[in-house]
Amino acid sequence: MAPRGFSGVLAPAITPFHKDLSIAPERFVHHCRWLLANGCTGLAVFGTNSEANSLTVEERMLLLETLVEAGIPAAVLMPGTGCCSLMDSARLTAHAVRIGCGGVLMLPPFYYKGVSVEGLYRNFAEVIERVGDERLRLYLYHIPPVAQVPISLELIERLLQRYPGTVAGVKDSSGDWNNTKAMLERFAAGGFEIFAGSEVFLLANMRHGGVGCISATANVNPGRIRHLFDHWRDADADGLQEELAATRAVVQKYPMIAALKAIVSHYGGDAEWATVRPPLVELTADQRRCLAEALSGRGFEMVF
Amino acid sequence: MAPRGFSGVLAPAITPFHKDLSIAPERFVHHCRWLLANGCTGLAVFGTNSEANSLTVEERMLLLETLVEAGIPAAVLMPGTGCCSLMDSARLTAHAVRIGCGGVLMLPPFYYKGVSVEGLYRNFAEVIERVGDERLRLYLYHIPPVAQVPISLELIERLLQRYPGTVAGVKDSSGDWNNTKAMLERFAAGGFEIFAGSEVFLLANMRHGGVGCISATANVNPGRIRHLFDHWRDADADGLQEELAATRAVVQKYPMIAALKAIVSHYGGDAEWATVRPPLVELTADQRRCLAEALSGRGFEMVF
Repeated sequence: MAPRGFSGVLAPAITPFHKDLSIAPERFVHHCRWLLANGCTGLAVFGTNSEANSLTVEERMLLLETLVEAGIPAAVLMPGTGCCSLMDSARLTAHAVRIGCGGVLMLPPFYYKGVSVEGLYRNFAEVIERVGDERLRLYLYHIPPVAQVPISLELIERLLQRYPGTVAGVKDSSGDWNNTKAMLERFAAGGFEIFAGSEVFLLANMRHGGVGCISATANVNPGRIRHLFDHWRDADADGLQEELAATRAVVQKYPMIAALKAIVSHYGGDAEWATVRPPLVELTADQRRCLAEALSGRGFEMVF
Repeated sequence: MAPRGFSGVLAPAITPFHKDLSIAPERFVHHCRWLLANGCTGLAVFGTNSEANSLTVEERMLLLETLVEAGIPAAVLMPGTGCCSLMDSARLTAHAVRIGCGGVLMLPPFYYKGVSVEGLYRNFAEVIERVGDERLRLYLYHIPPVAQVPISLELIERLLQRYPGTVAGVKDSSGDWNNTKAMLERFAAGGFEIFAGSEVFLLANMRHGGVGCISATANVNPGRIRHLFDHWRDADADGLQEELAATRAVVQKYPMIAALKAIVSHYGGDAEWATVRPPLVELTADQRRCLAEALSGRGFEMVF
């Protein structure tokens, strides 16, 4: 039996749409397969960069089933299942567990701002109780710049105390290394799996007891990120880290999701891949050209 | 035929739950009837104070049908239908139009922050096109303290230009009178219906060409708010306004939704009414007692 838990490089797989904004499942399967064949150890489908909150609950469940039916092992899947309504979160989570997903990555309910730790604790506890399945491995998703509702150390501690076998780890997308470090110092020794929310912090995270990263740019650059993960103890690790950060900086000059889709569209020769759902907008033709030039200037490529 | 459009005092009706967090439809019907019998001119069900984003899409549709089946005229209903996913927004909006609702109150998609006016325009336009029904009357919901995604004047202007018969008005819950004033100056003369997001701005809104207010505290104090609406041109209107603001200030010392439910629970002698869904939490026994004392000290009561 394979050990439980995730580590390495997970991509929050981007979600392809047709021009009419409907989902393109065959492109999704193709992209997910490519990610696993090119360095990703797992897929955090339905993340922020997947436009998950622009999908319906039914669309998410259908896409997840499509991946598993296409032969992608459910054990490498860590779908996002955190919604504003705990009823939706419980439904998506139960569904993910039922089809065998290795874990779920759960946003806090993000409509109400300034809610208490007690209220967030009740939300996660209620979801766990409603799912009521020992196979559940729950990863908390801390992304205050977007959700505006944080996963505090106090919340993690309370959840770990009550649900030690279920609350498995966290993705820290705060962009604040001091916060990741505080999580590592407090929880990593107990086996709590801490993922950096960007490959920019991958090396630091590994050196302090983390298990990897779940990063937007793993959608387009999985091989090199994986290379650092495999070689983080090597002498040239800092150089590899700098190289990764420089590539990410090129992408990050643009709105991230539109940029990732533009890159996949460009290297795959598939114009429709660039489609995003509102409220996001595609890159302009000028932006796409500048981005492609900057990437090829760095020797970047995606081979399908 | 009744004239189209809303005016007066609308309550974002609070949504009752059983202790197990399931919806209590019979209490909801009872509360909505009470609101209409006691001063409300309409019901902005599924607003922020209704915990709408803590409900599933199916729960919202079922509750709306329950109201109409119970004999509440659909024309007085302005349900909230704005979700993170435009597919959900379109589904809820089409449903509301189909059963005859006088309008819908639509949040912007609120997960992604810092999105462009173009992206928000595309979201609302796409929903309107997908609904594809001339009966649709869309009210934009500006509540930046919670949604963190604003409805700018530029966005309103673009939508009004393209969909003049459909985009009918706005609720301004910014809490910033200067913003409401700017909306009034720019759009009120054209028949755009501008609601203050709190009765604290009701008199000012009426004096500058607005049509009323949609306010949380209309859930518990509809009669006196309506009285000001009916008498805003009277000599004692400023005194009535001060009185309303003072009552609201008592409630606003506590988390609003939990406080509203505590008040209905207290005056109705129905403990279960106080239930909220996580991430919200109920008031403590001490808070409930202090709130009830402060309200009765002001001569406040609710008679069922």
